[in-house]
Parts: sequence; structure tokens; C-alpha cells
Amino acid sequence: MELFGKHLICTQEWAKKDLDRILELSARIKKFRFSDHFGNLLKNRTFFMFFYNPSVRTRQSFECAATELGGHAQFLEPKSMRLKTKKSAGETVEDAAKVMSRYACGLGIRMLEDKVAYYGHGDEVIREYAKHSTIPVVSMAHDRFHPCQGLADIMGIREHLGENLKKKKILITWAHGALARSHCSVQEAMLICSRYGMDVTVAHPKGYELDEEVMEWTRENCKQNESEFNLIHDPKDGYEGAHVVYSRNWMSKDAYKDDEFLKSAEVEKAMGYTDWICDSEKMAMGEDPLYTHPMPIDRGHEVTDDVASGPRSIIYDVAENRLHVQKAVMAVTMGNL
Amino acid sequence: MELFGKHLICTQEWAKKDLDRILELSARIKKFRFSDHFGNLLKNRTFFMFFYNPSVRTRQSFECAATELGGHAQFLEPKSMRLKTKKSAGETVEDAAKVMSRYACGLGIRMLEDKVAYYGHGDEVIREYAKHSTIPVVSMAHDRFHPCQGLADIMGIREHLGENLKKKKILITWAHGALARSHCSVQEAMLICSRYGMDVTVAHPKGYELDEEVMEWTRENCKQNESEFNLIHDPKDGYEGAHVVYSRNWMSKDAYKDDEFLKSAEVEKAMGYTDWICDSEKMAMGEDPLYTHPMPIDRGHEVTDDVASGPRSIIYDVAENRLHVQKAVMAVTMGNL
Amino acid sequence: MELFGKHLICTQEWAKKDLDRILELSARIKKFRFSDHFGNLLKNRTFFMFFYNPSVRTRQSFECAATELGGHAQFLEPKSMRLKTKKSAGETVEDAAKVMSRYACGLGIRMLEDKVAYYGHGDEVIREYAKHSTIPVVSMAHDRFHPCQGLADIMGIREHLGENLKKKKILITWAHGALARSHCSVQEAMLICSRYGMDVTVAHPKGYELDEEVMEWTRENCKQNESEFNLIHDPKDGYEGAHVVYSRNWMSKDAYKDDEFLKSAEVEKAMGYTDWICDSEKMAMGEDPLYTHPMPIDRGHEVTDDVASGPRSIIYDVAENRLHVQKAVMAVTMGNL
Repeated sequence: MELFGKHLICTQEWAKKDLDRILELSARIKKFRFSDHFGNLLKNRTFFMFFYNPSVRTRQSFECAATELGGHAQFLEPKSMRLKTKKSAGETVEDAAKVMSRYACGLGIRMLEDKVAYYGHGDEVIREYAKHSTIPVVSMAHDRFHPCQGLADIMGIREHLGENLKKKKILITWAHGALARSHCSVQEAMLICSRYGMDVTVAHPKGYELDEEVMEWTRENCKQNESEFNLIHDPKDGYEGAHVVYSRNWMSKDAYKDDEFLKSAEVEKAMGYTDWICDSEKMAMGEDPLYTHPMPIDRGHEVTDDVASGPRSIIYDVAENRLHVQKAVMAVTMGNL
Repeated sequence: MELFGKHLICTQEWAKKDLDRILELSARIKKFRFSDHFGNLLKNRTFFMFFYNPSVRTRQSFECAATELGGHAQFLEPKSMRLKTKKSAGETVEDAAKVMSRYACGLGIRMLEDKVAYYGHGDEVIREYAKHSTIPVVSMAHDRFHPCQGLADIMGIREHLGENLKKKKILITWAHGALARSHCSVQEAMLICSRYGMDVTVAHPKGYELDEEVMEWTRENCKQNESEFNLIHDPKDGYEGAHVVYSRNWMSKDAYKDDEFLKSAEVEKAMGYTDWICDSEKMAMGEDPLYTHPMPIDRGHEVTDDVASGPRSIIYDVAENRLHVQKAVMAVTMGNL
Repeated sequence: MELFGKHLICTQEWAKKDLDRILELSARIKKFRFSDHFGNLLKNRTFFMFFYNPSVRTRQSFECAATELGGHAQFLEPKSMRLKTKKSAGETVEDAAKVMSRYACGLGIRMLEDKVAYYGHGDEVIREYAKHSTIPVVSMAHDRFHPCQGLADIMGIREHLGENLKKKKILITWAHGALARSHCSVQEAMLICSRYGMDVTVAHPKGYELDEEVMEWTRENCKQNESEFNLIHDPKDGYEGAHVVYSRNWMSKDAYKDDEFLKSAEVEKAMGYTDWICDSEKMAMGEDPLYTHPMPIDRGHEVTDDVASGPRSIIYDVAENRLHVQKAVMAVTMGNL
């Protein structure tokens, strides 16, 4: 019961034992997916999904999660809500959050890419909602973090490599691509993989540095687990000894200027780094590594088809796990399981 | 059972005893919110929500209401429906209403501001739907009325001032603002507060006259209840002796011309009346008055922050009541409670 | 159980006995609409509705169907999904279908008119989804077929003319109109009416030819049932001896050029054929024929008001049947009834 009402903005802010509990429950929920035990936990309850940005996986998996718990997820887009902005009259976040707290059992928020004015802006907004909400706020991906993706990643890795990840190495590598993606998924992966004892190698070209605080937390997690952390700037070297490879495009530190997201400049710059792709030649350098990615994949840029669709790819399992971990999170924070 | 199938377009069209029944049921529903008694009333039933205009509170609260009664509210936007208009081929309201009557247990419609061509147009359209529907039609706010807001207002006022509102004065005052709002909420408040025996003072600058028929009904309600009705054109005087203050912007009588809604001209004109704001100085002239507003609030224009967020503000309670009164209305008109 | 997991892209691809089963179940579902027997078949299950094109009847009836079976239909629009196209990076159909198969019990797809690049393109896309899905894919109307409309048509015709349709003649006639409609509904009607033993006459102006393969299948169905098939190019002659008249506009064979849908040219051309309207004078030539149409109707072009709203019109019954047949299809393919 102690997790009832708790916000989930980043896994790093939750105690390890609480993450353990979510993962255990997720496994049980996966095994007994349509058991009556879980099918009424949110009966007659509403979960608000607040999408500043559109989404594939996230909308589908959260709405399914609510349905499978017996509740209902409302799909809301701020464009149809008269929220106050610098440029226009409308409702304050405080008013919106306080009223939503009267109606719903939980509130999910997604805010990144072109819907934020600078890196960290989305994190500020979601914390503003959390401050005024008396119901749990869950990040459905924002510019800094993506906790449910992180939970799905580690659940999938443990399903394939076993629960003890000591001395297992994950390479989290930047890849070129045409989508100028946010940092949230990779940063969450760094945090949770290091939290669960893996050796973590991060690889990216110079100019694509990640959040310094997240880097620091990851180093600290590794230190506490007596595991290794490495940061490199080479597209190949990191594959050596890897048990898991996670390739993903992300935007550079220059992606925002004067409150604008310079997407086309970012894509153009990124597309120049054609060496930065996960392919079978590089994968052969590892320890028969699993391949993972938070999806949707930009095939041909982030990874070749033969790897993404190959026998060691766990992308669909991880995508499925989004559903199970989200059900677990909702069950304990909103359903009082 | 006698309310089963009944339309709700304006509270004035319902008998007082039927409104009493809704308010009693709303209070019970609020107290026993997730009781099994209410959780299956609309099981397997669909409520269509037809949004000509987007909305914050209304969409959230109606969709929650359906969920909490065990049913489902479908969010529909006419832009994705090929309805016949003067300018384009498409389906008639008659055909749409007759088919929807075969699918759903009720139909909510929202139509105001830029989606109507002149004041009263929305009322005509909603009555056209009602004429051809064999299921109850509920206004989710249209240019003339907003019955569920009125019910939530009076429920909130009675929660704080007691059930007997004799000799209790409400000031319903125009306020400046940047949103050029419809008359529906204030007109419904006038009607229901006078129906429940309150003294009603309406204040607005000249040029912001309300619907003459609604004014006449309000006067008649007051007469029958031996209560007072006053219309004034001063931003301060009405606060004297007030037990409840309701400040809200609304558009002028010149808001539509040649079937167009002149929003920017309305906003510009309204923003000149800077005296017309509810603030603590004016509130001090009343009898420690409650502050209410149908939300979302245009803070800094319609009311100052200290009043809106002050100890006498009941805005969040009233917003919550939207859910409860809507559940009650749906339960009796669609669920045969 | 043998229909569990089966795709429904065109009724012609299902065995006659399986269509019989759907129609028998639909009748039972209509009679005992809110019986507990059906109200939990999809409990906690999600049906994805993938709307490349907006829709009236289809969205309402599929979402109602899921609700009435105790499940939930998610309304998804590809515009909010980063799907790969020739012009932009994004997710492949394979990845989308494989992940959706992990979340949902079924997938409905609608794709026609301006969302396809040429006639037959929608059929290719839906079969690509079906190929990669491990859950049943149901057409919610695509450029070639509209199986649930066909099932609703034949259910309605049999309700009014009896189950044995031997020697009953249906006239399926092109009509002028301002909407440049797809061929799917009329082609499905030809197939299912000939399958159920009716004499079929198709009438259209030259230049409005239908799919040759569908014509061939229809001829073959008639041959097997020893019924008559006629193709004519006159706006009146087909009414003689008709027991059912189905008038509907559809686009010409020149509607697409260089991957574009030339809607305005199509409308302009079609609107010239003012003789091609179903009216009471023509209806008088038949055997007191029923009038049907898949709706929404373009009144005044496709049919006159007195016929569409007359005593022999079964349009609302057929529209209602959409709900029942879709519940039946979902119950057996997704709910394991």
C-alpha cells in the first residue's frame, strides 16, 4: 500500500525495492494476464492521458493497460484544452491539476521534442502538474525521462539473460536517423541498467552529450554495484564483450535555439554519421548480444533489418512489456493493490 | 422512472421536483461514489459526446461519468463526420440522430462560440437533434444554456450555505477577459439560483445584455419565490450584502455579424473594462461571500488570484460536482434508475 | 471455435456456412442485446480501430460493439502515428502489426478515397497488416470491400423479405452525387446478395465500371445459385421487377491519377448525370421494392427524400444491423464464442 498515490517521473527517484516489486508484479501480470485478480482493480476508474505529443506505443499500451485493469484511459490532447501559455489566456496548470485530481485516479503526461522550448522544460511542466495533483502523475515520456520504457527494457533483458545481471554488459549507442529523437529513453535505460548491476557503455559522437546529472547518477549506480561505466566516442569499439546492444538516435545539445526545436537541422546533421548504425558485423564483436530498441525503429538508419528482425532481437518482447509494467505501476499507485 | 428518456436542454424546462431528485441523487452519488449500486447502471451502454467545440471540464467530466456508471462515452467531433451544411453535401441531422438512437443510450452535444452563426443557433441545432432522437439529448453547453453547470453550481452553493437559500444573495457579474465567452453558464446560473429561492443581482456594462427571455424567466422565478431580482450596471455596487459572487466574462450582443463570430473585436472591447474584476476589496463589501466560477478561469481578468485561490473559493468543489450531477442525470434519463 | 483468429477482409473469402453462422448469431445478439451472455465476451480486451479516413457509422458502430461485448475499442488515427511512408521515416507496417498483436484482441482498418494512391492500394495495405498480425484484422471499409456493411445489408433484406431470397431481385444502381464515393459498399453488396441467392442487376453509366474480379465472382455466385445477373447502363430499366433497390454514388475508373484522388473532377462529372437518382416514379416500376443504402445518404442526389424516408425504406434497420453483425464477427473471431 505504500506506493499508493506515488508519482513516477523517473525510476531513479524510486527505491530499488519498489522497482523490484513492480518487476515482480509485472511478471505475474504477464503470466496471468486476464485473470480476475487484475481485471477489476480500476473498475469505474479513469486514468487521464495527456498527450502534448502524439505517440504510437505509449497511447496504445497505456489505454490497453487501463482497460485490462477494468478502468478507462481518456485520451486528451492539450490543443483542445484552453491552457494558459505565455502567448494566450487560458487555464493554469494548478487549476487543471486540481480539477483533474477530483475526477481521475491518475494522470499520465507526454511532453517532448517540438512541444518543449528547451531541454528540461518538459521535466519542469510534469513536476508542476505533480506538485498540484493529489493523484499520481506518471511520465509517459518527457524530454528527460521515460520510466515505463526503462522498466520494460530491464524486464525484457532479465527475461532473456536471467535476473542476475552482474557482469553483463549493455552498449547504449547513438545511431544516425531521420527523427531527431529525445533523450528520455536512453537516459532511462542508462539509469535502470546501472541500477540493476549491469556494466554500461555509452557511445556517441562528440556533440551528442547526454544530461550531465543523469551521467553522474549512472556512474554512481555503477559504483554502488561495483560494475563498470564507460563513455566512448567510437561507433564500433563498444560492441566488444556486449551482452545487450541498444542503438537509438537522439538529438544533439544544439537542438533548441530561442525556444525552438530545430528539427530539420538536427536531422541533416545526424544523417551525416552513416557509420553509426547497428549491423550484423558489429554485433558479431559481442557475446552473441541481444538487440533492443524502444521502438518505433527507424530501420536502415538506427539498425539494419537483419539485426532488428534477427533471432537475438527482443524488440517485440520489450514493447509487450510496456503493457505489463504499466499495468503494475497503475495497479500499485492508483489501484491500491 | 418518469425521467427515463427525457432531454435536458435547460433546467428551466424541468419541474422543480425533478431537479430536486437530481440534486438528492447527486449528493448520494458523491457520498458513495464507487459503490456497486451505481457502478453498473450503464454497463455495456454507450453515451455519444458530440463536440462541435473543444472543451476541458465537460469532456473529462462526462467521460468520467459514463465510466463510473459502468458505461462508455464516445468522444465524437463533427469535423470527422460528413454532416450536411449549407455549403457542403453530407448527412442530415435527422439521419444522424435516428441512427445514433439505434446505437446509444444518450447523446450529449456541445455547440457555441465560433461553431454557431448567430446567438440562438446552437439552441436550434440541439433541439433539431432532440426532435429526431429517441434517446435523451443532453446539452453539454450550447450558446443559450448549460444545464449541468447550473446543477453543479446550485449543488455547490447548497453544500456551503445549506439547503435553504431563502434570503441568500448571489451576485452574477460580468468580468473583463480575453476569451469572449458564451452566455450559457451565467444564464443557467441565473435560472437555477432564482429557482432555488436566492436573491439574484446581475451586473454588467451596457452593451452586454443577456437573453431577454432568460431575464424574464429569472424575474418570474424570483416573483414566485418572493425573492429579489436586480439588474445593475456598476462593477462594485452588487457586492454589498452578497453571500455568493460569480464573476465571468461573456460576449456582447454584437459578437456575431453576417454569421461570423468576431472574437478579436470582442476581446479588445472587453479588455477595456479593467474595473470589472472580482478582487478582495470588492469581496469585503459582501457577507463573507463564497466565490464561484464555472472554470476554466481567466485569472487576472475575471478574478484575482487571491480570491480564486482563497478560503472562500468553491471553484474546485463546483467543478467536482459536474461529475456527480452528470452521473445523476445519466442514471435517471439513460439508466432507468 | 474454428473462426477464432480469422481475418475478415471480404465476405467472398469466408465459407457460406461461416457467414450463415454470423447471421444467425447477429439475429440472436439483436434479440438479446444486453443479455449477460454477450456482455463480458471481450471483458478487459482491446480492439484497435485504425482510421486512415474519418467515418460516421463505422466508428460509432464498432466502438459500440466493443463496449456492448464488455471490451474497449481504441480510436487511432495514423496521422498521430509515425508510420513509414515513401516520403518520410517512420515505423514499418510489420513492426506496427507485430506490436499491436501483443496488445489487442483484434485490429480494424479503414482506408479509402484520398488515403489511397490508386484503386486497390487500400486492399494491399490491409493485407500487409493481416500478413504480419497474429490477431484478426477486420476491414472497416477499404477501397475494394466493406464486409460488415455487406453482412448488415443481407441481414436487413432477410429481416424484411424472409430468409429465402430465391427469385428476389436487387437493383444495385449508381447515382449521381457530390461525394465521389468508394466502390467498397456496392461491391460487397453484389457479392453477398448473389451469395444468398438473389437475382442481381447492376446499373451504371459507362465509365463507372466496377472491379472486374468482383464482377466475375458475382457472376459465378449467381451461376452456382441458378440466379440471374445483369449489367445495364440505363437509369430506369433495372427497377422493373425489383424487390430491393440500392442506389449509391461511386467514383469512376479515372478517379486516381499519378497517385492522387481527383475528387473535384469526379464530383463535377458525376453531378452531370441528373437522371441517375432513385425516385418514387422509378420505384413504382418495381415489386413494391424495399429501399436501402449504406448511409450516410446524399439526399436529393442519390435518392429523393420521399423514398429515403418512405415506408419501404430500411436504411435505419440496416444501419442498426452494422452494430449487431460487428458484435457477432468480434465475438467469434476475437472472443472465442
